[in-house]
Amino acid sequence: MRIKLTVAYDGTNYSGWQSQTNAPAVQDVLEASLFDLFGHEIHTLGASRTDAGVHALGNVAVFDIVTRIAPSKIAFALNARLPQDIRILSSEQVSDSFHPRYQRTVKTYEYHILNRTFPDPLRRNTEVHFHYPLNEKSMDAAAQFIIGEHDFASFCAAGFSSKTTVRTIYAANVRRTGDRIVFSVTGNGFLYNMVRILAGTLLEIGEGKYPPEKMKDILEACDRHAAGPTAVAKGLVLVKIEYPDAP
Amino acid sequence: MRIKLTVAYDGTNYSGWQSQTNAPAVQDVLEASLFDLFGHEIHTLGASRTDAGVHALGNVAVFDIVTRIAPSKIAFALNARLPQDIRILSSEQVSDSFHPRYQRTVKTYEYHILNRTFPDPLRRNTEVHFHYPLNEKSMDAAAQFIIGEHDFASFCAAGFSSKTTVRTIYAANVRRTGDRIVFSVTGNGFLYNMVRILAGTLLEIGEGKYPPEKMKDILEACDRHAAGPTAVAKGLVLVKIEYPDAP
Repeated sequence: MRIKLTVAYDGTNYSGWQSQTNAPAVQDVLEASLFDLFGHEIHTLGASRTDAGVHALGNVAVFDIVTRIAPSKIAFALNARLPQDIRILSSEQVSDSFHPRYQRTVKTYEYHILNRTFPDPLRRNTEVHFHYPLNEKSMDAAAQFIIGEHDFASFCAAGFSSKTTVRTIYAANVRRTGDRIVFSVTGNGFLYNMVRILAGTLLEIGEGKYPPEKMKDILEACDRHAAGPTAVAKGLVLVKIEYPDAP
Repeated sequence: MRIKLTVAYDGTNYSGWQSQTNAPAVQDVLEASLFDLFGHEIHTLGASRTDAGVHALGNVAVFDIVTRIAPSKIAFALNARLPQDIRILSSEQVSDSFHPRYQRTVKTYEYHILNRTFPDPLRRNTEVHFHYPLNEKSMDAAAQFIIGEHDFASFCAAGFSSKTTVRTIYAANVRRTGDRIVFSVTGNGFLYNMVRILAGTLLEIGEGKYPPEKMKDILEACDRHAAGPTAVAKGLVLVKIEYPDAP
């Protein structure tokens, strides 16, 4: 049967979901735990190849297994074997035709910013510290321009190969709670580094370097050089992945 | 002049504020940074000797120095020397008669609980995971009994020497936001392990082992054995220390 795992992790000590360098990848550690549990090698297929340092509260991975362990109990058995910075939040049987990447997906990301003089040591690995005052209303106004179907070529890092750079964003906003600012974005897919380049651009707009309407010009340019810098990885978290058409 | 520092730290890797074992203490690391900045040994006096694993967003420390560095700039100079899990949030000159412990203080602590099936790897060091359902309304009702002036002998760990175990609690409540429960308490002083024993008792009440009114009986017993267990350190954070009569 095919098992779908919901995987949360602190990306600080990993090279990302997939092995890219000599640093351990979340997938490698997960597969080692699966080996320990089932006694043979198991290959997992992840929904999102998060970068080094990026976190997840709801990445998705699937694997095929013949076992008498109840699907919902696999999460408990894996958590007993995994390091504390990786947790399986749920395990369930899905259709054998379920594929975490080729399926239509709705992904939600958040980018976390602490906007005050000094960083918070308790959240130093999961939010980006920004000293200068940020205008979250300008950032939110700018975020509205990305909602809908657009060519996001300006927000795509070099080296990304995809048939198209057109994606649909269903929701995007920037909200402040005290010193903390969160950029949330939900869409049907994201180009390489897209959320981090969007965040880097929103930070420049929040600083007042550009007006919110600049976002519209950047989109229309379809040129990576038009957008802001790629914001650092540690502020980014993959919050959830939904499968509206899951069989 | 006397300088007052507001100190935040992730207590995970420390033996507490003060050196008790061979593990490094927050105070030792701070004093090493002061040595590096000013070129000679400087002794600091901390307001609260937090235990190993306990966090702070606003502990207070003072020291005396003759320097031409502006008081407010000392925070920047120290942060450039401190590890990322300790941050000075402010530095200011105070009266030479200011003493962080003998002064009348109002301290606020929070105890953080994650109440769901599995822990959150992103907050694994700063909240306690509790699998079984907790009734936060019972916990909040129980917390109301501790408000006011009471003898807290039931909530004091052995080995604590103090003239009196009477303390005044100004505010106490338990609030749930989704899966997260926070116990907040503000008072004029806390006995050794008092907040953690209160939290351990509230967890038992939240589980339904005892009704909220049990808190009243425990207070009246003036006996450590009447109260619940000492909740683990990592859920506790010293939020702030106020000095209403500061000269």
